[in-house]
Amino acid sequence: MSDSAPHLRLGTCDYPEHVPEDRWAAYARGQRELGLTFVRVAEFAWSRMEPRPGEYDWAWLDRAVEAYHAQGLRVVLCTPTATPPAWLIRAHPDILPHDAQGRVREFGSRRHYDFASPVFREHSRRITRALAERYGEHPAVAGWQTDNEFGCHGTARSYGGASAAAFPGWLRQKYGTLDALNEAWGNVFWSMEYGDWEEIRPPALTVTEPNPSHVLDYARFSSDLIRDFQAEQVALLRELSPGRFVTHNFMIFESGFDHYAVARGLDFVTWDNYPTGMLEFFAPPGVGEALKTRYARTGHPDLVGFNHDLYRGLLKGHGGWEAETGKTQPHTPGFWVMEQQCGQVNWAPANPLPADGAVGLWTAQAWAHGADVVSYFRWRAATMAQEVMHSGLLRHDETPDRGHAEVAGLDLGSFPLGEVPARVALLHDYESLWLYDQQPHSAALSYWAQTVAYYSALRSLGVDVDVVSADADLGGYAVAVAPAVTLVPPERAARWQAAVEGDGLRLVCGPRTAFRTPGGQTWAQGQFGRLSELVGARLLNYDSLRPGLEQAVGGGYAAQFWAESYRLAGAQATHRYQGGPLDGQPAVIRHGPVTVIGAHSEALIRDVLRDVLEQAGVATSDLPDGLRLSRRAGVTLVQNWTGENVAWGGRTLGPVSFEVRAEG
Amino acid sequence: MSDSAPHLRLGTCDYPEHVPEDRWAAYARGQRELGLTFVRVAEFAWSRMEPRPGEYDWAWLDRAVEAYHAQGLRVVLCTPTATPPAWLIRAHPDILPHDAQGRVREFGSRRHYDFASPVFREHSRRITRALAERYGEHPAVAGWQTDNEFGCHGTARSYGGASAAAFPGWLRQKYGTLDALNEAWGNVFWSMEYGDWEEIRPPALTVTEPNPSHVLDYARFSSDLIRDFQAEQVALLRELSPGRFVTHNFMIFESGFDHYAVARGLDFVTWDNYPTGMLEFFAPPGVGEALKTRYARTGHPDLVGFNHDLYRGLLKGHGGWEAETGKTQPHTPGFWVMEQQCGQVNWAPANPLPADGAVGLWTAQAWAHGADVVSYFRWRAATMAQEVMHSGLLRHDETPDRGHAEVAGLDLGSFPLGEVPARVALLHDYESLWLYDQQPHSAALSYWAQTVAYYSALRSLGVDVDVVSADADLGGYAVAVAPAVTLVPPERAARWQAAVEGDGLRLVCGPRTAFRTPGGQTWAQGQFGRLSELVGARLLNYDSLRPGLEQAVGGGYAAQFWAESYRLAGAQATHRYQGGPLDGQPAVIRHGPVTVIGAHSEALIRDVLRDVLEQAGVATSDLPDGLRLSRRAGVTLVQNWTGENVAWGGRTLGPVSFEVRAEG
Amino acid sequence: MSDSAPHLRLGTCDYPEHVPEDRWAAYARGQRELGLTFVRVAEFAWSRMEPRPGEYDWAWLDRAVEAYHAQGLRVVLCTPTATPPAWLIRAHPDILPHDAQGRVREFGSRRHYDFASPVFREHSRRITRALAERYGEHPAVAGWQTDNEFGCHGTARSYGGASAAAFPGWLRQKYGTLDALNEAWGNVFWSMEYGDWEEIRPPALTVTEPNPSHVLDYARFSSDLIRDFQAEQVALLRELSPGRFVTHNFMIFESGFDHYAVARGLDFVTWDNYPTGMLEFFAPPGVGEALKTRYARTGHPDLVGFNHDLYRGLLKGHGGWEAETGKTQPHTPGFWVMEQQCGQVNWAPANPLPADGAVGLWTAQAWAHGADVVSYFRWRAATMAQEVMHSGLLRHDETPDRGHAEVAGLDLGSFPLGEVPARVALLHDYESLWLYDQQPHSAALSYWAQTVAYYSALRSLGVDVDVVSADADLGGYAVAVAPAVTLVPPERAARWQAAVEGDGLRLVCGPRTAFRTPGGQTWAQGQFGRLSELVGARLLNYDSLRPGLEQAVGGGYAAQFWAESYRLAGAQATHRYQGGPLDGQPAVIRHGPVTVIGAHSEALIRDVLRDVLEQAGVATSDLPDGLRLSRRAGVTLVQNWTGENVAWGGRTLGPVSFEVRAEG
Repeated sequence: MSDSAPHLRLGTCDYPEHVPEDRWAAYARGQRELGLTFVRVAEFAWSRMEPRPGEYDWAWLDRAVEAYHAQGLRVVLCTPTATPPAWLIRAHPDILPHDAQGRVREFGSRRHYDFASPVFREHSRRITRALAERYGEHPAVAGWQTDNEFGCHGTARSYGGASAAAFPGWLRQKYGTLDALNEAWGNVFWSMEYGDWEEIRPPALTVTEPNPSHVLDYARFSSDLIRDFQAEQVALLRELSPGRFVTHNFMIFESGFDHYAVARGLDFVTWDNYPTGMLEFFAPPGVGEALKTRYARTGHPDLVGFNHDLYRGLLKGHGGWEAETGKTQPHTPGFWVMEQQCGQVNWAPANPLPADGAVGLWTAQAWAHGADVVSYFRWRAATMAQEVMHSGLLRHDETPDRGHAEVAGLDLGSFPLGEVPARVALLHDYESLWLYDQQPHSAALSYWAQTVAYYSALRSLGVDVDVVSADADLGGYAVAVAPAVTLVPPERAARWQAAVEGDGLRLVCGPRTAFRTPGGQTWAQGQFGRLSELVGARLLNYDSLRPGLEQAVGGGYAAQFWAESYRLAGAQATHRYQGGPLDGQPAVIRHGPVTVIGAHSEALIRDVLRDVLEQAGVATSDLPDGLRLSRRAGVTLVQNWTGENVAWGGRTLGPVSFEVRAEG
Repeated sequence: MSDSAPHLRLGTCDYPEHVPEDRWAAYARGQRELGLTFVRVAEFAWSRMEPRPGEYDWAWLDRAVEAYHAQGLRVVLCTPTATPPAWLIRAHPDILPHDAQGRVREFGSRRHYDFASPVFREHSRRITRALAERYGEHPAVAGWQTDNEFGCHGTARSYGGASAAAFPGWLRQKYGTLDALNEAWGNVFWSMEYGDWEEIRPPALTVTEPNPSHVLDYARFSSDLIRDFQAEQVALLRELSPGRFVTHNFMIFESGFDHYAVARGLDFVTWDNYPTGMLEFFAPPGVGEALKTRYARTGHPDLVGFNHDLYRGLLKGHGGWEAETGKTQPHTPGFWVMEQQCGQVNWAPANPLPADGAVGLWTAQAWAHGADVVSYFRWRAATMAQEVMHSGLLRHDETPDRGHAEVAGLDLGSFPLGEVPARVALLHDYESLWLYDQQPHSAALSYWAQTVAYYSALRSLGVDVDVVSADADLGGYAVAVAPAVTLVPPERAARWQAAVEGDGLRLVCGPRTAFRTPGGQTWAQGQFGRLSELVGARLLNYDSLRPGLEQAVGGGYAAQFWAESYRLAGAQATHRYQGGPLDGQPAVIRHGPVTVIGAHSEALIRDVLRDVLEQAGVATSDLPDGLRLSRRAGVTLVQNWTGENVAWGGRTLGPVSFEVRAEG
Repeated sequence: MSDSAPHLRLGTCDYPEHVPEDRWAAYARGQRELGLTFVRVAEFAWSRMEPRPGEYDWAWLDRAVEAYHAQGLRVVLCTPTATPPAWLIRAHPDILPHDAQGRVREFGSRRHYDFASPVFREHSRRITRALAERYGEHPAVAGWQTDNEFGCHGTARSYGGASAAAFPGWLRQKYGTLDALNEAWGNVFWSMEYGDWEEIRPPALTVTEPNPSHVLDYARFSSDLIRDFQAEQVALLRELSPGRFVTHNFMIFESGFDHYAVARGLDFVTWDNYPTGMLEFFAPPGVGEALKTRYARTGHPDLVGFNHDLYRGLLKGHGGWEAETGKTQPHTPGFWVMEQQCGQVNWAPANPLPADGAVGLWTAQAWAHGADVVSYFRWRAATMAQEVMHSGLLRHDETPDRGHAEVAGLDLGSFPLGEVPARVALLHDYESLWLYDQQPHSAALSYWAQTVAYYSALRSLGVDVDVVSADADLGGYAVAVAPAVTLVPPERAARWQAAVEGDGLRLVCGPRTAFRTPGGQTWAQGQFGRLSELVGARLLNYDSLRPGLEQAVGGGYAAQFWAESYRLAGAQATHRYQGGPLDGQPAVIRHGPVTVIGAHSEALIRDVLRDVLEQAGVATSDLPDGLRLSRRAGVTLVQNWTGENVAWGGRTLGPVSFEVRAEG
């Protein structure tokens, strides 16, 4: 494979403001020598850009950018709004957000602002404008990152102050009348009906759980705030920095806002990939201690892969990376890993060293799932403040750390850009997530746990997957899987029906599909609401199983955590429950091209999916534990995520390793 | 057995305000066709009764009541004070209660009021009067429920606002002088002595644990508030709705107030019975995961039975159900199950489907423990708001759910009304509960855990039990068991002594009996205080055992969590400790008809109780695991709570089933 | 051994204000008859000393002191400032401290004051002066205890109010300029730079973790407040009570302030020893359930021994007990156990009875570790308030409890005073503790856990240990062990280097040694900072291991929780890692007399220490599990902490027993 063809490029995150200026040239040279293309800077540097109100200091940043430029590095600049400085906060303490316990979240770390604060919005625009005016057309500047990790540390929602003040207005705009709101929320239920818009508060500190419709609208409202906040920055950057891309670095399994809405308007999406911390800290319920120990040094392939596929699909059908290249990409808009773990992290209960080979494996996997750029966090480990225990490519003492060697050993030419040839779409929906987790009904299961179970089953069958919006265009897919899309508005139901009936799509749904109305209620006619005809069945019973209580399914399966059964109205049962309250009732049903799996059983999910995929002509493989295949641009990345040798396709892969093969 | 003799009747909870009016007639017809007699309505409907301050809207409720009336259903109406509407709260935010962390508990669910709020008291009286004036003499109205589930969601106490303001006055009335209060609380202990009534606050947010006497009086004060709050409603209902009963629906294991005091003045008591949620969520410490899994689909027979027997005994010696019948009942004042689970609940960490047969079994058990009416919650599953995942007799789509079929299959004539022939009284005391759990000393044991252990031992021996106040008249009982009555005032001691010495009662006490004075201190002369002579012993040592640390007792027993020993002063030791710090010391002592069990060991408790019962002439049976006997009106209900066949009395009962036999 | 030689003396804590005055003479007589010398009184009696503002009532205390005096008991009086009375708090509510959640900590228990409150400081001086004027020269008064248990219940720091107001001034005094502070804290990291001193708040309620340098300085500031608070009392006591000692009773494993700084100026140190509660409640992470059950009735020998050795060493090199004796002691300044558990405690999740023999064993151990006086808590169990479940030497009913008999059986003459002949110093540092636990990086390991692991290894080898400040004079020691001294300023590094190079000291360091700068950052040149040359190595990698994930070390060892490796620059590797990311890298290194153990493995630590000790000429013994040796004044205390017989030195010790032998 030719090295000159478009291929994966690398970058790093660097913090010139953290080190003496005499290190800048050496660092930039080191970055260039390691083969990096991009360097992201300044996302937390507001106090240096504007040390005192209105007094800008660009001199240091000018010299820093020049240092990178001198080495031919392309700079990604950031709006520094994730860290408003002390002078701004103390002058306007109402910028601070409120937590769900009613407490003001204080200055002293980061993300200490309420997206609804008018005064913060004004300062956000002001600093963005000033920065973009200064660097918008600088030749070294490739593009922009807005803010940093929206929602991190539970900051997607503020439960008081500016957000509380803005909520009634948002509701008024949405509903027009209080009667409409009271009806949509079902407020009659506990005499929760409102007679004045100003009576309505955030859904916090209620005596017992708040109304899920109230929660759902507060999530939508908060998500809209983030979307609007970013849009103001994007508009300024478009105006003042023509030809540069604008992106944002999203978070692992972040659930606080609708990423599809917030991504709209960006050129491409990036996310921050920390596989070991993800497993230890962000893993959905049900990932047990044994699995966490087994994959402690690599992270779990499907947790990482899911996030890659999710972020690759965020802008599907919208925009594309045109700013940087000046021309339309030859493939689906790519994504970046803006922060890629390259050593231990510092924020999980345990923070083990990655296995030998893990940094390379993560990089290769990112590429194979569609990343065009992987940017390592960070160049040199910080010697100060909250993250001194976090690794970088260089150690505290500036010697190359373990990850540095792995990056140096990568053959970038073996990672060509191009399409991920997924024929399976996994449908994802933030509103369903919000409702599902507000009323999980079975504490051991969550939206993410249920969704990842289906994803992991698909990956264990060697299948490439696009994770896309539940409202995405499904043309071109052979199979769509909706693991937990519990909120299905009429328009969505119609779209799915058209794809199945018109385009020959095969659809597989998990339990609780289409259980909810857009308002967060249940359908008066019961599940599956407007989807009932397509499914050919209606809900019969649903069962929430405590850990240790299982419900058998014919064929030797055992449902855990959840089991639901159906009345057939056209569909046929392919599997039935055995024993217990659901004895003899349908557990899996098929209505032509539509299959619903009511029992949560990893083995059952996998077997049903294999069957559907084969009928759809999608080839499957029964992969050994810890081995994964990912395809891109006509080649296949074979990955061994385990600490042992694993044989596949006639060859043996060593522990924590990968191969790019012509076919998989 | 004749169907025309008085027998169990059924009801349901219905919410006409939750559904379109065109469903009302059909629902009432369905209820009648299912054989229901009663329908409870409107306990959360304040916002519909009074949409705006002072503007009443009765039209809808008139029509709803007529719809039931047309089908011959008898209506139980509720005062809607559990859900004050938004306009009232926003006009008077000081109605809101405060939690123990000092936070205001917000509007947006239910029970958001402080019982001490004068303004809320005024509105409570106003809406009660208005409702009672409208419907007090309506021919369909059988009676009234006050408010709903006092204490639910930890609302029995408010730790700020109106309650905090009222507390000093209550104390002044009780103690007269601060010297008396300081002495009663032992405030000298940590210089906690008060010099002004207004210095005294609720026992919250103290640097370390507050004074238990302070806690005890705050519990008494809060309990009095609930009693007085309800009494105001009861007085109005008596005035305006002559001939109708007044009741309240109490909660599973609710501990926040003195139920004996609050029940006084009601015609009879009702409670809300959710066996699976009870096991998963309300089970006392010590009920392990294995037991929770084993009984996940039925609940545990003794946890349910205990609550039945507790609520049956709440009004023992006071009042009776005369309002509805117009004549004195032929037996102990009955009770109702006002809300009976008939499918899955939605509020526990796991919410499994009941087993086939469970709804029938629960209904039969309720009857056999003295219920005259069982009313299912709810008619149709809610399609909106907080409880959409809770079942009803009808599903969301109005089809009959699993419970509906079980109810339809009941032979009500086989459940005759009549006496529960209990010869054993289990003595219960809320003040002991408050003190015990404020200073449990052994985190694995609680008042309820200790009490239920004795109850369960009795039930496993096939014995019927009355749970009664520790101050109840014990005439007629052969045996009284006081598992955890740690607070024994002189009057109580005298009453017990008289019953033992005068009436031939046998008394069995658990550990910590009579350890505390009425003020919450310990007796200066040590345990058993004023009971020492009757017991013929004094405390020697008490031992708090961590889980895993056991203290052996001669005869092959092992104490868990708690072991105490005694110095004999007339009593004899029937069991002694072996090994450990208590080696050779008395573990169980007997002084004529009085027995004290110092070691917490389920096997030992059971064996000692069997022995005492046999001496008292109370027949016992060693029941198989999960089989229970309950007697009423001359017949015996044999219950199999397990998922397997169980043989008893020469016949085999199928899984989760019951039989009414002429003798047990 | 002659009984007339100086030997251990005993005391108790008594509360005349808790009992009727007619008991006082009898109690004092009983104390004398039990052989007690000292009685501590009045530490919580402010509300009785000053019932109303400015109105002192000394009459009762006069009579109480006389009652002790009449029996020849020596009285230890206390300043009552741990319990400011209600009238003071309600007049000045700003005295109350704030917790880390922003809540005011309320009146109603104890320690409800902020050390920074100017008004409380004034009242502290006033009551101290009044008390000292009254009793300063009373012949019965032997000395004084300041306040009570600084820091108990998390009170070392207040996160608002007076402390928050005082913090900026302390910072200004320390740093002079904001530039210096911003640099020292590394505030540039997340734009946390301050432009005004008043912008700085306590490190609480931040959106995510605060800056560790901010935390470190807040801990120093709070520690200084305690030091200064006490110094004001000490100055008054010195002035008004000449010839009497002044001390304070410190807490088990209390971490909230620098005990070396606070102890400075006292005559000697005392601490409060509760072995069973210590194991159940204060044990560092890693002490598992099995160990807690095994030692439930004795506590763990090394947890107790560590605290003895820590408090013995607190004043090493400063002051001494001269006030009481009038002459210089013949040995290292002794310490007291001011409160010694003599039965069950009441404040742990489980509170078991001590084993037979435990009270004697604890007393003997205290003596052997250097205690000159052991004072039992308390004379009679309280019959009122928070501690009614706590034992005393007398029961509630005034009969002698189990501990009383053990105390009566002690042969005090067998416990001569004299030196503890430790040749090994364990280095301890509160600033390292604060930093370590702010960023543990491995949740299963803490500063105390790591430190106690080294201590316990030494004790298991039969070696006596001085726990001393990391800045102590190390002259005279053969070996110094620094388990977790992560903060090593240049002066400290120089001192260690001089002791090693000049005095022939052997030094053993644990992982993370010298990782941090005095400001709480990491060294730009990496670990070991200024110690690098002495160690002959630099950090290579560090690994945080989740429970269940181990890292093998050659020789059959397995690191848990932590593993770090080194680049050699003069040192040699004595042990290397096997497998995993550290495969082949040095795990233990030696550079002449300096050894660093990078792997946290109890077996490895023990083996390396044994080797170093033997090379240093310190004799070791491989003690059986639960057997311990402690030497003092030329004799050896052999202790069996287990419930079984254990053979040692040719003789068998019964369960929970000790022997004083001429040699060990």
